[in-house]
Amino acid sequence: MVKLNNNFNNLVSNYLFAEVANRVAAYKKAHPDKKVISMGIGDVTQPLAPAVVQAMKAAADEMGVKETFRGYGPYEGYDFAREAVQAHYASFGCRIAADEIFIGDGAKNDLGAIVDLFGPGNLVAIPDPVYPAYVDVNMLCGNEILYLDGNRENGFLPAPPDRAADIIYLCSPNNPTGAVYSREGLKEWVDYANANGSVILFDAAYESFIQDPALPHSIFEIDGAERCAIELCSFSKTAGFTGTRCGYTVIPKALERGGMNLNAMWTRRAAIKYNGTSYIIQRAAAAVFSPEGFSQAKQNIAYYLNNARVMGEALRAVNIEYVGGGNSPYIWFRCPGGIDSWKLFDLLLDKANVVCTPGAGFGKNGEGWCRLTAFGDAQDTRTAMQRIGQVLGELG
Amino acid sequence: MVKLNNNFNNLVSNYLFAEVANRVAAYKKAHPDKKVISMGIGDVTQPLAPAVVQAMKAAADEMGVKETFRGYGPYEGYDFAREAVQAHYASFGCRIAADEIFIGDGAKNDLGAIVDLFGPGNLVAIPDPVYPAYVDVNMLCGNEILYLDGNRENGFLPAPPDRAADIIYLCSPNNPTGAVYSREGLKEWVDYANANGSVILFDAAYESFIQDPALPHSIFEIDGAERCAIELCSFSKTAGFTGTRCGYTVIPKALERGGMNLNAMWTRRAAIKYNGTSYIIQRAAAAVFSPEGFSQAKQNIAYYLNNARVMGEALRAVNIEYVGGGNSPYIWFRCPGGIDSWKLFDLLLDKANVVCTPGAGFGKNGEGWCRLTAFGDAQDTRTAMQRIGQVLGELG
Repeated sequence: MVKLNNNFNNLVSNYLFAEVANRVAAYKKAHPDKKVISMGIGDVTQPLAPAVVQAMKAAADEMGVKETFRGYGPYEGYDFAREAVQAHYASFGCRIAADEIFIGDGAKNDLGAIVDLFGPGNLVAIPDPVYPAYVDVNMLCGNEILYLDGNRENGFLPAPPDRAADIIYLCSPNNPTGAVYSREGLKEWVDYANANGSVILFDAAYESFIQDPALPHSIFEIDGAERCAIELCSFSKTAGFTGTRCGYTVIPKALERGGMNLNAMWTRRAAIKYNGTSYIIQRAAAAVFSPEGFSQAKQNIAYYLNNARVMGEALRAVNIEYVGGGNSPYIWFRCPGGIDSWKLFDLLLDKANVVCTPGAGFGKNGEGWCRLTAFGDAQDTRTAMQRIGQVLGELG
Repeated sequence: MVKLNNNFNNLVSNYLFAEVANRVAAYKKAHPDKKVISMGIGDVTQPLAPAVVQAMKAAADEMGVKETFRGYGPYEGYDFAREAVQAHYASFGCRIAADEIFIGDGAKNDLGAIVDLFGPGNLVAIPDPVYPAYVDVNMLCGNEILYLDGNRENGFLPAPPDRAADIIYLCSPNNPTGAVYSREGLKEWVDYANANGSVILFDAAYESFIQDPALPHSIFEIDGAERCAIELCSFSKTAGFTGTRCGYTVIPKALERGGMNLNAMWTRRAAIKYNGTSYIIQRAAAAVFSPEGFSQAKQNIAYYLNNARVMGEALRAVNIEYVGGGNSPYIWFRCPGGIDSWKLFDLLLDKANVVCTPGAGFGKNGEGWCRLTAFGDAQDTRTAMQRIGQVLGELG
């Protein structure tokens, strides 16, 4: 009899966003007349940049002609795509070799796949609150998890613990809190990882939202990170690729543990379990980092950051404490009056017809907080914040 | 100190196709004047069908307009794509529910991912010769492998062994041999799996090449398969998607083991480690199974099968024994005169300037055989077979 992966039985019964979607669907069914505005799931709403659309159409045309048709590409990504990402890193001062960059179908896929590089018996440090997939991926492997408390006191940016963790997940700008590590904050982590022989998995999916030049876009801006860190990034938030699907993972060639080289291991894994990202999608990705494409992408980011500004103003007007927003598409606010986060979720859905994400879904330290995203339509965002402000003001 | 996955050290040092590519590159560098024809890696050469190109361009345009832009899609695939695959199954008499079909980024990805459903301690039966990734994926997990001998005697179609295996890989039409299981042959496997509580992973990537109406396109044509089998398929060979990347995996809702439902587990896994296939690519995939797209795809398949016919004739003319070809893009031929397969590879590269794939790369039973693919240009295929025929004729 086949043995199935019993770790599936240890997962929490509902994936957070599925539960949110279920409650919203039930509400809409019961109230078909209400205009519900979603500020819940972190999904973009602005269309792809014209340069990206053009690149995909040109690539599709190439695929329809025998002379320019492309079959299997390199597992690691085409040079043109790797070099486009390399140039992006160079734009904020990071020197990364093209063969340290792997193009993939999205950061979530690579976050799921990266655990293949690690053996059993690792202690995995994961911040709490956190993007739920980090935890679930490690639960599926049966890994032991050490939660790192993020809270008001540390600004939701936990520092290294006393105990030596083997694998560390960091996300900055953070999902769900919008908090961003300073260079000094990351340097503490890099030193800790190098001292303990740990590996940091750094999720940089929101780096393009950073406006403050003092804040690092990449962990590779920190000396020594090339000996302890893997960075996972995505075009999803940089350029609206949530439905287009493309990401990249950077594994420095200097990253070795116990005589094994992680760049070589990931290369080998790709040969076994992957066949490269669609040529059309890689052309789209490369177009994001063209001068024209990036200028168009930055307009969308400015649009979302303006939403975040509107959201912050509305919360301040009713004296609601929050973090995030300035260098991030997320605002993480404190539930007023001691109300719990799923209760506030239900209340905002019912009274304001706005969908937020309850903080409890991101871990125990998320209780008492909720996440709002700035990815909506500008007018919807203003409307939603007026409604939310009224409800929160009455509670506070 | 982090523990890495030591199973990487148990992999054979070079992935077969990488080794072939290295030898070909070295030969071309030494002989820049020679026109080398590749019949090695199973990659298509005909362009995408016009209907597919049009679908991608239309989808790209949709993504560039706010009103029709699509963000995150369903993890399991859009209904339009799942229903297109469902209709394809119906075309050869298989009734599959749309929610038993999962759209993915390619069969190789899903073959790599499917092991997440299984726990440690399974005995995994894998035919030999075989597509190398099946073995490598299981080596990475540290699974025990039971090789099933494919040979001249059983026509490279092994029957169930005496021992009870927990997981069974089958590929029909087979890569590398081109052999195709009959309904009776598959029925034996289905009965064995149901008797032993095993799960069959059925790779149907080449089903579109089947011309003989007596041969099954899918394991789900066999009664009882819905209680023991998962089928993995791809648009790569059906419609030239090797560089476009899309596949589908069918997990029947009736497939349960030890109280766990594999369809539900795969759905959950997708929520944790996947974010769906690119919208543009799913539109391309659905277009493959439109009447116009499928008619265009079938023209390419006919083109490749005509190559296979030419190849078979050339081998018969010099009395070389082979299998495959009629219902498959692969021809698997016996090395003449007791020569080993890497030696014949080198000889054909040097004397005929043709790249084949040495059978030894597919397992111990592949020794003494070589694989040729019918995916080349028709004129190149004729030229290559004339040259090969001459070399083989002199050896035989």
